[in-house]
Amino acid sequence: MQIWKITLSYDGTPFHGWQIQPGLATVQGTLAAAIRHVTGETVLPQGSGRTDTGVHALGQVASFALECGIPGENLHRALNRALPTSIRVLAVEAMTEGFHARHSAVRKSYEYRIFHGLVKRGQMGIICSPMLAPYVWDCPLPLDLTLLQEAATHVLGTHDFTSFAASDPDRATREAEVPVYATGVRRIDRSCWQERDGLYVYSVTGSGFLHHMVRNMMGTFVEVGAGRLSPDSIPGILAARSRSAAGPTAPARGLFLVEVEY
Amino acid sequence: MQIWKITLSYDGTPFHGWQIQPGLATVQGTLAAAIRHVTGETVLPQGSGRTDTGVHALGQVASFALECGIPGENLHRALNRALPTSIRVLAVEAMTEGFHARHSAVRKSYEYRIFHGLVKRGQMGIICSPMLAPYVWDCPLPLDLTLLQEAATHVLGTHDFTSFAASDPDRATREAEVPVYATGVRRIDRSCWQERDGLYVYSVTGSGFLHHMVRNMMGTFVEVGAGRLSPDSIPGILAARSRSAAGPTAPARGLFLVEVEY
Repeated sequence: MQIWKITLSYDGTPFHGWQIQPGLATVQGTLAAAIRHVTGETVLPQGSGRTDTGVHALGQVASFALECGIPGENLHRALNRALPTSIRVLAVEAMTEGFHARHSAVRKSYEYRIFHGLVKRGQMGIICSPMLAPYVWDCPLPLDLTLLQEAATHVLGTHDFTSFAASDPDRATREAEVPVYATGVRRIDRSCWQERDGLYVYSVTGSGFLHHMVRNMMGTFVEVGAGRLSPDSIPGILAARSRSAAGPTAPARGLFLVEVEY
Repeated sequence: MQIWKITLSYDGTPFHGWQIQPGLATVQGTLAAAIRHVTGETVLPQGSGRTDTGVHALGQVASFALECGIPGENLHRALNRALPTSIRVLAVEAMTEGFHARHSAVRKSYEYRIFHGLVKRGQMGIICSPMLAPYVWDCPLPLDLTLLQEAATHVLGTHDFTSFAASDPDRATREAEVPVYATGVRRIDRSCWQERDGLYVYSVTGSGFLHHMVRNMMGTFVEVGAGRLSPDSIPGILAARSRSAAGPTAPARGLFLVEVEY
């Protein structure tokens, strides 16, 4: 028996999220089918966390155990041959027993990409390319990058992020990622904006993320960036520990799971 | 009655090509539905030519006539609101009577994008990102850019391109683009390769293109680039005037219709 760790990139567009569901194309289900095709073994690869429908990954990690003694390089090549081009295995590593993609993770990084072509109300603005549209939020509001950065700075450090968690508490807990706290307390080590390839890109690294947490922070940051909310309202939103205190949920398609650290 | 010219960009991935087909998502059908939604008028927008399933457009042109007196700017905005993000109207122009997107076109430009990550046989190579895969040919052969350019130079000028046309002669003629000759003779003004963003990109401009012509030239160029065929075999392939003389048809997903000139 060998524990395998695989690093994956996927385009979330054609999938109904990570988690296996009968009759629907999901990343976990497609990966399980590819592993079965390659090895004949039926396993359910465990992801570092779920990603929602439309969310992309540049470095998702999954783990599973195999009976067969296939070399890692062969497993890597064979999986990429068996998988659709919308999922690629970037790396395969043999791990010691006890490794688990979700339980062993210590930090995660996400990126959120915003296309900001519509700069003036009622005017046409720059049109978002159809080839880019599945990978960005084509935000219709004029955004101030300085205000976005001010808002982002307020979430650095250890806070209770309940206000930014999906409002269904059962689901928020069930979806909670590692390390699993009983509460909404998480530590954010990096939270910053940059302009890249004509996009506004938000990068966030933390000890773990509640369900919808990055998308709910994004919806709130954009309210700040558009001048509808003061950057200094973020601490109060955190303190409220209520979903209704924060802004709306930003679209899934702008979100990328970038890296999982162990 | 007003003739409209619209310039379109689209992601060919979710569509069964340009041409309207009952029960299938096509660009022409989706556009006709958007025009009907906006104006209440049922028209069939005429494209500069068809694009096959999976072929993309950066500057497709379509024309249609409307009874209503909607200003161009309003038509532009309303169409983009009505269309899915996989199709964007880039420009709207009011034209004088007699303009027709296909009949009035004088030149067209295409681009073909190749990802060349697998450089050595049997080795892993660079993995093509899932987010890039729908827009490139992830070519498994090691390619020499100098050889590709030598092959491309041989198609410059006026030639009979029958060897590079889809083998069904009825379909090849039916799909023939402007100006419509009775033969396979076309004039190529530009045919060159460049390396861009880590891709090999082929650009071609000509008086018109037979059905599958760019994809069949590409399949042949790649045989040359991989060292399986001499660049000097291209004139003989043209002279043969037979589809079987040329290489295979390259995948649709690497092809972009870039511009139509009038």
